[in-house]
Order: sequence, then C-alpha cells, then structure tokens
Amino acid sequence: MSKPIAIQGIRGSFHHEVVQHYFNGSNNVIECMSFDSAVDSLLNGKADDIVMALENSIAGSILPNYALIDKHDLKIVGEYFLDIQHSLMALDGQSINDIKEVHSHPMALLQCKVFLKKHPHIKLVEAKDTADVAKQISEDKIFGIAAIASKNAALMFGLNVLAESIQTIKHNETRFVIVKREHPEVNEKMLNKASLKFILDHKRGSLATMLNVMSDCKLNLTKIQSLPKIDTPWKYAFFVDVTFEEYKDYEKAKSIIALMADDFKILGEYKNARL
Amino acid sequence: MSKPIAIQGIRGSFHHEVVQHYFNGSNNVIECMSFDSAVDSLLNGKADDIVMALENSIAGSILPNYALIDKHDLKIVGEYFLDIQHSLMALDGQSINDIKEVHSHPMALLQCKVFLKKHPHIKLVEAKDTADVAKQISEDKIFGIAAIASKNAALMFGLNVLAESIQTIKHNETRFVIVKREHPEVNEKMLNKASLKFILDHKRGSLATMLNVMSDCKLNLTKIQSLPKIDTPWKYAFFVDVTFEEYKDYEKAKSIIALMADDFKILGEYKNARL
Repeated sequence: MSKPIAIQGIRGSFHHEVVQHYFNGSNNVIECMSFDSAVDSLLNGKADDIVMALENSIAGSILPNYALIDKHDLKIVGEYFLDIQHSLMALDGQSINDIKEVHSHPMALLQCKVFLKKHPHIKLVEAKDTADVAKQISEDKIFGIAAIASKNAALMFGLNVLAESIQTIKHNETRFVIVKREHPEVNEKMLNKASLKFILDHKRGSLATMLNVMSDCKLNLTKIQSLPKIDTPWKYAFFVDVTFEEYKDYEKAKSIIALMADDFKILGEYKNARL
Repeated sequence: MSKPIAIQGIRGSFHHEVVQHYFNGSNNVIECMSFDSAVDSLLNGKADDIVMALENSIAGSILPNYALIDKHDLKIVGEYFLDIQHSLMALDGQSINDIKEVHSHPMALLQCKVFLKKHPHIKLVEAKDTADVAKQISEDKIFGIAAIASKNAALMFGLNVLAESIQTIKHNETRFVIVKREHPEVNEKMLNKASLKFILDHKRGSLATMLNVMSDCKLNLTKIQSLPKIDTPWKYAFFVDVTFEEYKDYEKAKSIIALMADDFKILGEYKNARL
C-alpha cells in the first residue's frame, strides 16, 4: 500500500479535495496543522507526497511555500487547479439572521469580503483551517456561529448550507502542486512544464536576455515573479514557470540558463494540468 | 493645515511609523481597520494620502493592495522601505514563562515562527493589527497575554519588551507606498521610478520583446510579477517597477509600451527611495 499524502488542514478541506481529484479518490491523508509540519511528514518518511497550495488568482503566489520547497530541495511532480467555491454553513434550523460570528481562514474571509459586508451584524473571526471550523461547529453543536468552507465540508460534517458561492470573484482558482523528496524517474515525453529558479545580477537587460533565450528555445512563460534576494543587495531571484512541446528544446534552454544565471535550480518538471 | 493621512491600523503600528518618517514626524493620521476603509477615506476626501504596505521580503507582493490601487485608479506618489523589527511585549512584572498566549497579525506570527516554536507553551492567536493588541493589553491590564509589535508600540502603550528582533529573517524589509487620488504636478527631474501595469497575450516571446524595449530605453527593472487575468484565459497582466536616470528615456519607453500592450496603465511615477 502506498504511503499517505500530507496535507495542510483536515479531511473536508480544499487540500483534501485536491488529493481526491489527483489521487483517484484517495482518503489516505495525514492531516497537518501547518505547511511546515506537512513538510516534516515528508522529510521523516511518514508521507511520500505533499499537496500544497502555491498560488491563487486573488492573493498571488504563496511565497512561504515556495521558500519551503526551495529550502528543503523538494521537487514539484504535478499540479492541479481547483476552482475554490466558498459556502456559508451552520447547524440546521438557523437562518443567516441567527448567525452572530463567522469563523474561517483569513484568506477565505478576504475572498468573501463583498458578501460579508452585506451582513454587517456578523462578526468575522480568523481561524486556522476552513474545514476545521465546520468540524468544531458540528461536533460541539455550536449555534450562532457559521463556517466558510467547501460544500464538501458541509456534507462531511452535516451542516446546512446557508449561501453558496459567496466569494467575490466567482471564478476563483487556486493552483496546488504535488511535491516529493526526489524527482521520480519518468518518461520525458510525459513532461511539458517546469518550475525554475535563477538569480541574476541587477544589470540592465539581464532578465530580457534570459527571456530571449527561453523564447528562442520555444519555451512559453506561464508565470514570472521577482524576489529581491535578502541580504544580497542588487541580486534578484526569479521564479519562472515554463511550458514546452519538445523536451529537447527545454533541455537546450536549461543548459544555456545554467551557464548564464547564478544559482540555477529546477524546482520541478511535470505535466501541465492546463492541457 | 494639510489633511490627515489614512493608515491601516492604529497609532503605534508600522504604518504609523512610516507616516512619521515620510511626513516629518506627523501624527495627523486617520486610523482605519482595513485597507478598504483607508481607500474610502481617500475617496471621500477625508484624507489626502494613504500609506499602504505593498510588498515585503517574505510574503512578496500584497496583491489585494495592488488591486485596490488599480480598481480605483489611485496614484503611487512615493515609497518608503521600513526594516520591520518585531518585539514580544507584555505588562510589567512577567517573564516569558508567564505568557500563555501571544496575539498578533497573521503576517507577524508567520515572520516570528522560529522564535515561537522555541516556546511551545505559548498559544498563537491571530489578531487584526499588531499595535492594537498592545493597546488592548495595556488599557485592559491583561496579564498572561503578549503582543508582537514594534518597540515603538511598547513605548507608546507602556509595555515591557520581553524579547527583541524576534523575526526569523533579521533583515525584514517592507515596502510601503504613499498613494493619492491624482498625480500631483511635479518637476520631472524629481522622478526616477515608475510602477506600470500592462496586459499581454500569451504568445511566446511577448514579454521578452517588452523587456527588450525597456532595456533599449535604459530602464532598469526592480520588480516584475505576472498575474493571469481572471476570466480572460491566455491573457496575462504584468506589474513592473522600473527605475531610470533620464525622464525622456522613460517617456520614450512609455509611448512604445502603450502601442505594444493592451491596457497599459501608469500606477505611479515617483522618487526611488533606494538612492
């Protein structure tokens, strides 16, 4: 039997939902209370994979998770895009007017700002995990408090959905990655996307030159993000995602980038989930 | 007398500290409980300026604030880099062993993760504002609870500093911007930095071409961030900061970019705070 998958949050969370989609309905997860402890599970061999949110269309990149992957030399081996739909849920027999407080993850509260502004009688309280609040409400039979979580969580913990799809931006996509300790042996033909990190001097045109190389090698850029290198003024780290059709084009680009950039690192090579 | 400056948080917060540095010791602030309400103060004319955190070296860009500037067509007119130093503070007469809970902003808790892990008996509780916790502890004489905030806040609210500079990364810089409704009339010679937004088709080399133009016009890139345009697949928005020596070089670049990109927008032209 394969080892469990470490997730941040509990069963019923969005991370769990990604596990179910990506690993064919698997429920074999280790529930971790932080991304750090999910990484610990991977490093100490309790898990073989982590599922980790990496960016979303509202808040952008989750840089602390990039930092975890980078620091521990982990490898991205897959990705999954989940359309995050938030629901407001509470114990049965209550209307929205009975709700005094809503508890949820700060990101979920932020994403539902417009809806929550329409109900100013409800106090917002930040919590660690969206699904965990739903679980607590259900287990401890707490009236007057609502959770913001997935419909999945409502179903799992027997709560009543008071309002559906309450996030401000209706198409609310989060990109999750599947992360391992080592890059597995795979057929190169299966690979058409890569996540790269490199460091450049702050010299006029240095990034343009690098992007020209990528373009010449037929790589398509799907994401770019600069990050000033702390404690090294005038050096910048770039996190870049590229897609490609031919692995050999990508290989050529890799060898040129390795010559041109300081500290070139492949964070992962995997299959583009967009195709 | 000039109008007050709207900040997120209260007096004693890092935003207030930036106001004091940038506006020559001014204490004339409107304390807002969210960035949204700070923007409201600007739009309804109660304030002439907002001070707003825009990115930091750990969490990266604060995209919701970029979105606020973009949506309301506000203008960045200045920037300030503050080295954020967190202290642990509580009422007098307590040691760290007396502390049961620490309350602070999620970002501050994240930044002090390593220090807090060394004191596992302390429960972490998320709060809205760093300085506000310090104020509450002081006003309500709450023992057993500590705040993470600036030394400034400890001084202002008469708390005892139990530990200094407790953030994991010692050099912890946040970039704040000063934002107005309209771009003021200024001498072009005073300007050497700009924040730009443009949208490109997802076509191989489109960004490289744009960066080549900037490089040819002697612009230096200090930040780049891509953001997939929600609801418009295959279009990407780019947020770019550039510095330049001659305004006429920048003007030339602007006119070329305007021809090449969709939806080109100048978020602000101002003086580089790094020089």
